[in-house]
Amino acid sequence: MPTPAAAKPARRDLANAIRFLAADAVQAANSGHPGMPMGMADIAEVLWNDYLNHNPNNPGWFNRDRFVLSNGHGSMLQYALLHLSGYDLSIDDLKNFRQLESKTPGHPENFMTPGVETTTGPLGQGFANAVGMALGEKLLAQRFNRPEHAIVDHRTWVFMGDGCLMEGISHEAASLAGTWGLHKLVAFWDDNKISIDGNTDGWFTDDTPARFEAYGWNVIRGVDGHDADAIKAAIDAAMSETGKPTLVCCRTTIGFGSPAKAGKESSHGAPLGKDELVATREALGWPHAPFEIPAGISDGWRAGNTGLVREAQWNDAFDKYAAQFPQLADELTRRSHAELPTEFAAAADAYIAKLQADGPVVASRKASQMAIEAFAPLLPELVGGSADLAHSNLTLWKGSKSVATDDADANYIYFGVREFAMTAISNGLSVHGGFIPYDATFLVFSDYARNAVRMSALMAAQAIHVYTHDSIGLGEDGPTHQPIEHLASLRYIPNNDVWRPCDAVESAVSWRAAIERSNGPSCLIFSRQNLDHQPRSAAQVADIARGGYVLKDGGANPRLILIATGSEVGLAVKAAAQLGEDVRVVSMPSTDVFDRQDAAYRESVLPSGCRKRVAIEAGVSDFWRKYVGLDGAVIGIDTFGASAPADKLFPHFGFTVERVVEAANSL
Amino acid sequence: MPTPAAAKPARRDLANAIRFLAADAVQAANSGHPGMPMGMADIAEVLWNDYLNHNPNNPGWFNRDRFVLSNGHGSMLQYALLHLSGYDLSIDDLKNFRQLESKTPGHPENFMTPGVETTTGPLGQGFANAVGMALGEKLLAQRFNRPEHAIVDHRTWVFMGDGCLMEGISHEAASLAGTWGLHKLVAFWDDNKISIDGNTDGWFTDDTPARFEAYGWNVIRGVDGHDADAIKAAIDAAMSETGKPTLVCCRTTIGFGSPAKAGKESSHGAPLGKDELVATREALGWPHAPFEIPAGISDGWRAGNTGLVREAQWNDAFDKYAAQFPQLADELTRRSHAELPTEFAAAADAYIAKLQADGPVVASRKASQMAIEAFAPLLPELVGGSADLAHSNLTLWKGSKSVATDDADANYIYFGVREFAMTAISNGLSVHGGFIPYDATFLVFSDYARNAVRMSALMAAQAIHVYTHDSIGLGEDGPTHQPIEHLASLRYIPNNDVWRPCDAVESAVSWRAAIERSNGPSCLIFSRQNLDHQPRSAAQVADIARGGYVLKDGGANPRLILIATGSEVGLAVKAAAQLGEDVRVVSMPSTDVFDRQDAAYRESVLPSGCRKRVAIEAGVSDFWRKYVGLDGAVIGIDTFGASAPADKLFPHFGFTVERVVEAANSL
Repeated sequence: MPTPAAAKPARRDLANAIRFLAADAVQAANSGHPGMPMGMADIAEVLWNDYLNHNPNNPGWFNRDRFVLSNGHGSMLQYALLHLSGYDLSIDDLKNFRQLESKTPGHPENFMTPGVETTTGPLGQGFANAVGMALGEKLLAQRFNRPEHAIVDHRTWVFMGDGCLMEGISHEAASLAGTWGLHKLVAFWDDNKISIDGNTDGWFTDDTPARFEAYGWNVIRGVDGHDADAIKAAIDAAMSETGKPTLVCCRTTIGFGSPAKAGKESSHGAPLGKDELVATREALGWPHAPFEIPAGISDGWRAGNTGLVREAQWNDAFDKYAAQFPQLADELTRRSHAELPTEFAAAADAYIAKLQADGPVVASRKASQMAIEAFAPLLPELVGGSADLAHSNLTLWKGSKSVATDDADANYIYFGVREFAMTAISNGLSVHGGFIPYDATFLVFSDYARNAVRMSALMAAQAIHVYTHDSIGLGEDGPTHQPIEHLASLRYIPNNDVWRPCDAVESAVSWRAAIERSNGPSCLIFSRQNLDHQPRSAAQVADIARGGYVLKDGGANPRLILIATGSEVGLAVKAAAQLGEDVRVVSMPSTDVFDRQDAAYRESVLPSGCRKRVAIEAGVSDFWRKYVGLDGAVIGIDTFGASAPADKLFPHFGFTVERVVEAANSL
Repeated sequence: MPTPAAAKPARRDLANAIRFLAADAVQAANSGHPGMPMGMADIAEVLWNDYLNHNPNNPGWFNRDRFVLSNGHGSMLQYALLHLSGYDLSIDDLKNFRQLESKTPGHPENFMTPGVETTTGPLGQGFANAVGMALGEKLLAQRFNRPEHAIVDHRTWVFMGDGCLMEGISHEAASLAGTWGLHKLVAFWDDNKISIDGNTDGWFTDDTPARFEAYGWNVIRGVDGHDADAIKAAIDAAMSETGKPTLVCCRTTIGFGSPAKAGKESSHGAPLGKDELVATREALGWPHAPFEIPAGISDGWRAGNTGLVREAQWNDAFDKYAAQFPQLADELTRRSHAELPTEFAAAADAYIAKLQADGPVVASRKASQMAIEAFAPLLPELVGGSADLAHSNLTLWKGSKSVATDDADANYIYFGVREFAMTAISNGLSVHGGFIPYDATFLVFSDYARNAVRMSALMAAQAIHVYTHDSIGLGEDGPTHQPIEHLASLRYIPNNDVWRPCDAVESAVSWRAAIERSNGPSCLIFSRQNLDHQPRSAAQVADIARGGYVLKDGGANPRLILIATGSEVGLAVKAAAQLGEDVRVVSMPSTDVFDRQDAAYRESVLPSGCRKRVAIEAGVSDFWRKYVGLDGAVIGIDTFGASAPADKLFPHFGFTVERVVEAANSL
């Protein structure tokens, strides 16, 4: 007798598949966070099965909706969703949760797992990334869509918890999203009143809906996060909003279904325990073994995910668009593939050669602006701005148009004084695709953005972080504004390329390197004050891109090597002139890039036989021991700076030709 | 014929004294920010002349009101106020604005200028410092006041601009102030609709009053910041509030009085120019030369500042209090003088000696908690907590009582997930006086707080920053949560003492050093995982406090030196056992402290004749070149970590006895 045709599974059972994949994987790993996936499973089920416009067969489909798990400790929620909806993430991958080199690391990592859009875990940043993604969609739509051809048309959905909302970056990012009216951004607040330390009454008493209304958001209050109909109604309302981003406030129970731990912080960050898992199976009516998903449930998930059809429909629409607007279609394709325009390389060569010939004496921040003026007209994907320091960072150029408008060429972001969200929004634009984002502030305030710089590097996301006023050369604003440890500290972030150019030519090369570097961020560090131009041969100009090179050779076997960066290169050149013909000067605009060169090149620049070495940089000295060792000398600064005109500060802190000569002669 | 008795000067003229001191000093320096002082002068005049409870003759009077200029670029406002009200800041000091070693640096620096409570400029942090000060007042009042003896009773006033309000830290700090009901905190918002990039309509559209109401603040809207009566009414209303902090929303005109630049960003950060100063004098009816304050105006300012009387009244009250509660009075005096209890040193000695004898094998985060348990009962001034990681950071102890209560012993701060405000609040508690504050999060999230750590160091403020989960030893949470560059980056902050202890004994010594260090912050870095106990002589135990010491001597002339910190010390000891008797092991819990030792001690630990050196630390390797030079080897990590159990990660990243031995033998 055949079994009766399986009824369509209940929504709760579909959600329970998430709950048990999550709880069982955490139990198997003996580590992880079951509470959030169990609490947000019903919301996720409705969103992913009824609304999310994606194609599990092609995580790279450009017009897909973006889904961001800002409360990334609930990674098993996302892995369960990816597995159930048909991404390339097997049940064995889930069994390997949190194991070395698995596709299911402790927090979602976009470089490890297909379908993960951005790397989350550091709280609040996923939300800011999502604001960047939604901004990206808006800008691409403005540029590429045509009447009857909404070829860029997708939403950004983000899950966030109380922790994300406590973080300051949530304020910065929400404020900008409200100002920009990013109505295709929908955030779900997992309002469970529990954080790691327990009930949030003692430390989180904000009226969050009122706060978001104050940012100009559409706020949907009081949604029961375990009632599918209520969730659907909220999402429908969010999708009908045309002027504001939406916050859906979902009341949920952390660890939903666990008899002993639901609603308690004990479900947050530790396995439920074997006995409690048994009790939870009982309570939720889920008799299946760990990692076993019954076919009916599995089919229920796959049925809702008609990604191939969706993408095929879009491909058809794109073909029609391409027929009518071939140039636009080519341009969108180029940008979505992160390809530079073919003419860029030659144009950059020509610009740099001309600069070397012209030899302008300008501040490197001015040289940076000149480079933007030269390169940006070729690169509509270059979108960025400054944290309220446009006229100090010199990030505006002739073609700048605010992204707060609906201009097709909108490309300039007035970030306001929001360094952290600025940087995380850059990361969001980068991982969205179609952009080379840049952002800017004073170097000292890279501190405010630091973990987002780290996240660019971890994600290998192309983002260009422009930091001006790079030393005591900032002058009168004083020690609160003068970076000391920042150059070294940024260089120590793995996969982060830091450039500190010495003149306009090196500045242009650093911009070019950042634009051509598709697999990670670059920090471009510029001076407030004018810098001398350095003469170079064409070969020397070419070697700038290697991060460090011989600016003055001192013969085949130099007696002494002076190594310097940025504003101190001019000083080194002057000191070398006093020290004699057999002294080499090495300009080292990027130690990160230099260290990646082959051993022969590095040896040609810094011959190991020459141990008399002096490094000169207006920053912490110990960093340079990696090049000068215990036998060399460093002219640096190991105290805070001071408030005074820059031309008083450099001699005050010992940056004089005399001191360099003295240090060299003492070796 | 005698001139008629001068009429009491008009309030506007009193305020104009501020305006012209500011504008003229900026003009003289050819650098600075006139717009804000000119815009907030009327508010400042009313607050300082009619309300501020201070004594210009004694900036250290403990019960003074605290005044914080969070928008610190308007430093000339504060310098003008200090000068006019009688602090030790002369007109010549004002003429030296922004000059080397003057008492009037570009931004207010509490270590340079009498009467400046905290160092500001990095936006938003002054506001968070003020929250810390107001919390400090509340806690001291709870502990020390008795009926009829409100011996601790002062207010905290803070000025803030649009920039402070855009920064994320304003969200974190305002939320906590609301939760704690700090009703003696009054913030003045300089609502001038101008930031550096121009009119804020394009990037700052928050409904700020509604936002602060959402935090539970008392918000006074729509105050005309140029109408003294309106300002007085608002302050009166703020002072009558007994349950909430107050935000006074002041509509002001930046650069008030300048015919050409008022209301424009051009008045923000550059001198007005000589011609415009002439025009401004005309417009405001101020015929006096630069830096000339007519006697009537000067007397008007001094008349309002009856500080000696106020302090004398308080001294009388304190004498009566001391007569009735001598122990409390002594204790308050001890704490206000930042003196440790006399019994502390002996108790710490005994505790550390006992630990060395007992030899517990625990995680250093657990050893940290044990140290808190041992020391905190002696130190009621030790107040702190964690950013929602209490049970991971292990910051709670048996005597912990939440500061959200009115308990006299309240000492524990549930900061929520707010690392940046947490750290700036610690700084505020520290500069308020009466506290040794501590805060805690995972080491990787020190990034979120980084500039506030820097500010502790710049201000030489005692604050203890506890960072646990110090390496890949964190395990499964993965690379977003695993610090790599953080140890080195924190060490590079000038005047910041970083400790990474290797066992329970070093952990206790590091806590003790942080408690005894009154002139700067300490970062205490602890492991998640258990660490071996190391045997030591009494002399070795004593040498831990020197930052680095010989743990195993390898004879008088060691062949090889292994240098390690934290969890890698155990590895070094095991490798040394394989490498032979002539190998030295140096434990280096604090490079900062070690580098301050005299040359003879440093030479005794690291004899310069021995160049075969291997440094071992689970962080960036290049930092250690300062000790091992170009000839040594470093076992470190220069990539991001990975998600896996810790015991898989250490061998994966090369932290094995075999690799240390191999590296040593390769030298």
